Amino acid sequence: MALTLDEGLDRLGALAVRTGLGLRAGQELLITAPLEAVPLVRRITEHAYRAGASLVTTFYGDDVTRLARFRHGHADSFDTAPGWMFAGMAEAYRGGAARLAITGDDPALLSGCNPDFVARASRAQSVAYRPALELITSFATNWSIVAAATPAWAAMVFPDLPTEEAVAALWSAIFTASRVDHADPVAAWAAHNRAIHARRDALNAHRFAALHFRGPGTDLRVGLADGHLWEGGAGEARNGITCNPNIPTEEVFTTPHCARVEGVVRSTKPLSYQGTLIDGIAVRFEAGRIVEAHAERGETVLQRVLATDAGANRLGEVALVPHSSPISASGLLFGNTLFDENAASHIALGQAYRTCMQDADGLDDAALEARGANSSLIHIDWMIGSGEIEVDGIAADGSASPLMRAGEFLGAFAS
Amino acid sequence: MALTLDEGLDRLGALAVRTGLGLRAGQELLITAPLEAVPLVRRITEHAYRAGASLVTTFYGDDVTRLARFRHGHADSFDTAPGWMFAGMAEAYRGGAARLAITGDDPALLSGCNPDFVARASRAQSVAYRPALELITSFATNWSIVAAATPAWAAMVFPDLPTEEAVAALWSAIFTASRVDHADPVAAWAAHNRAIHARRDALNAHRFAALHFRGPGTDLRVGLADGHLWEGGAGEARNGITCNPNIPTEEVFTTPHCARVEGVVRSTKPLSYQGTLIDGIAVRFEAGRIVEAHAERGETVLQRVLATDAGANRLGEVALVPHSSPISASGLLFGNTLFDENAASHIALGQAYRTCMQDADGLDDAALEARGANSSLIHIDWMIGSGEIEVDGIAADGSASPLMRAGEFLGAFAS
Repeated sequence: MALTLDEGLDRLGALAVRTGLGLRAGQELLITAPLEAVPLVRRITEHAYRAGASLVTTFYGDDVTRLARFRHGHADSFDTAPGWMFAGMAEAYRGGAARLAITGDDPALLSGCNPDFVARASRAQSVAYRPALELITSFATNWSIVAAATPAWAAMVFPDLPTEEAVAALWSAIFTASRVDHADPVAAWAAHNRAIHARRDALNAHRFAALHFRGPGTDLRVGLADGHLWEGGAGEARNGITCNPNIPTEEVFTTPHCARVEGVVRSTKPLSYQGTLIDGIAVRFEAGRIVEAHAERGETVLQRVLATDAGANRLGEVALVPHSSPISASGLLFGNTLFDENAASHIALGQAYRTCMQDADGLDDAALEARGANSSLIHIDWMIGSGEIEVDGIAADGSASPLMRAGEFLGAFAS
Repeated sequence: MALTLDEGLDRLGALAVRTGLGLRAGQELLITAPLEAVPLVRRITEHAYRAGASLVTTFYGDDVTRLARFRHGHADSFDTAPGWMFAGMAEAYRGGAARLAITGDDPALLSGCNPDFVARASRAQSVAYRPALELITSFATNWSIVAAATPAWAAMVFPDLPTEEAVAALWSAIFTASRVDHADPVAAWAAHNRAIHARRDALNAHRFAALHFRGPGTDLRVGLADGHLWEGGAGEARNGITCNPNIPTEEVFTTPHCARVEGVVRSTKPLSYQGTLIDGIAVRFEAGRIVEAHAERGETVLQRVLATDAGANRLGEVALVPHSSPISASGLLFGNTLFDENAASHIALGQAYRTCMQDADGLDDAALEARGANSSLIHIDWMIGSGEIEVDGIAADGSASPLMRAGEFLGAFAS
């Protein structure tokens, strides 16, 4: 790849501010990032101030101190979460701040820690974070996620390379997947958004009642919520600003009906959850609920996740991604949802997106739940697509339209 | 010095948690730190979790992005401050969190920036920070400040050394000043606190009405507030926890009467304020108010500071420090208040400490102001002590008791 690291960071920084956030002059910006992302944060911050940001504030996370908690903390201390910090973040969003998350934490950081401590801390964090998260999921402000290569993440993706080479290789993969290797990344993203929007519009025009997934170990009928809406690519937040919440993104996605999912499904890629890898998931749904769940690796953590709350074992999202996506084409397993979910069609346990429901403005959670939109503290994507998957759209009268074969979109959906 | 950097960091980390904060098991801890202090933050965090901290959260500041704001930000953007973040911090303190600040930012960072932008940003920051700061100044929770050597700060203190040597030399000076070069730093601090407390108690027993400072360019009578209280060394926060708010500390200090300061005073060391050095300050007080102010360097910034609000040109603190203090003995100009204020007697413009007033519990600001305690958005210390300074305590009947000669305490005050 021709890009130097400095060029790539600068382009990714500009893309995050312009295309990712659509940052408006006068807006505050709140960033969260791992400590290793300091060079990228500095490029983003400079581009944000040049674009007129009134203030950029970054909260750094540190895997070393996160791990220190689970190693040295007292057993009675793991139900604490910084609710005061999340309350502050929520106030920032309500005050008009944009939100950028930089992902890159060690996917397996906590795999050696006491799973009870990890589960309790994670649950406390989810409860405390909810008021801020709801403003993000309801698209109250413009937000985006981009990635930074960290040594621990790079070592997982490229286990055979020395650290420095692994980090360089991961940066290169991030730049390619994020389209900053194009001569004009902002223009490349405009074209990419047009293609995803055409697919989204074709799906919305059909108003399918359900999707039917078939593949090895999978025969799953996913009912769609009443008045579901397909989304994908750039979208307009409720503050009127158009942004790209995920960089990269390849998916179109909508809200399943949380009581109308039936059948069996097997995961096609490992899922990294709170530092633990969960692989080889096989579950069975009845009337929307998971009634049987196994995993070849990380089953204990999976079972804990499913027990988080009443909505944790129901679906909140279903997404379609062509097997030929650039991320799938890289052949890499990133161990990071932002990338892996854009390599394959997927489903998500937990909270549904209000933005994937028609006429949701002004409706409370109960009204959306009555239409099938799930509610939970969690939202966890896992991959069920591959080159062997077939997907049909099922109309209200039961008739089937082929959407995907051998993992690729057909006809009008191929756009 | 025999301490390695790792040993010094570990001892300073343990001292900050045990002696600085007196951290209690189950308490949350909120740290602010410059990015360069990551190794010290990690040592502190581990010691905090071992001591039973329920959660340690660190907010990192970055001089590079701070400077980027003033270089690239739009002219209309400098009145913004993260009020939402300070609201969150205030909520943390009210919820029982302890507070540790790590100082070490580049003292001259903003000296080349537009002073109007810097003053506007500083004022916005002061206003937004006030609700959180008041909980600290009123000692609602246990808190402390320690220092970390950063390259920019080290370059200022040791301008003739290469960066790496300068940083090592500054760490060494910090370890010595903070008494972590003693075999048992926690025991050394217990003895140091006993000595300061004896001096504090002697001053409180005398109930002086005023102090009289004499030296080159200085002939200043500082009236003390009605019902003032001398403080120094470890103190008990209102949550019942004993902590050392400053590491290092050598001073005893109290509240002047904001309407009873008369005469002239000249600074004896430069003052670093918001990144600008102010040196050679000479001011004249009448009825507590500064009516004439000059500085050989940084006078523009000084004048802006004095104009912040009605209390910014009156005194909120007066402190006595022996000229023989270890920090003075180092012969170094740190350019950082935490150190320089412990090298010399000093006064502070702006906000008074409630804790330096008798029977302040339950009294509102107006009641304390009626007794002479100043109120302001700012609290800025500047040094007026030296080996040439003389201080007398003036009793209510006008009689003078000699407290300091040639910069050293006399008699019972020498403890």
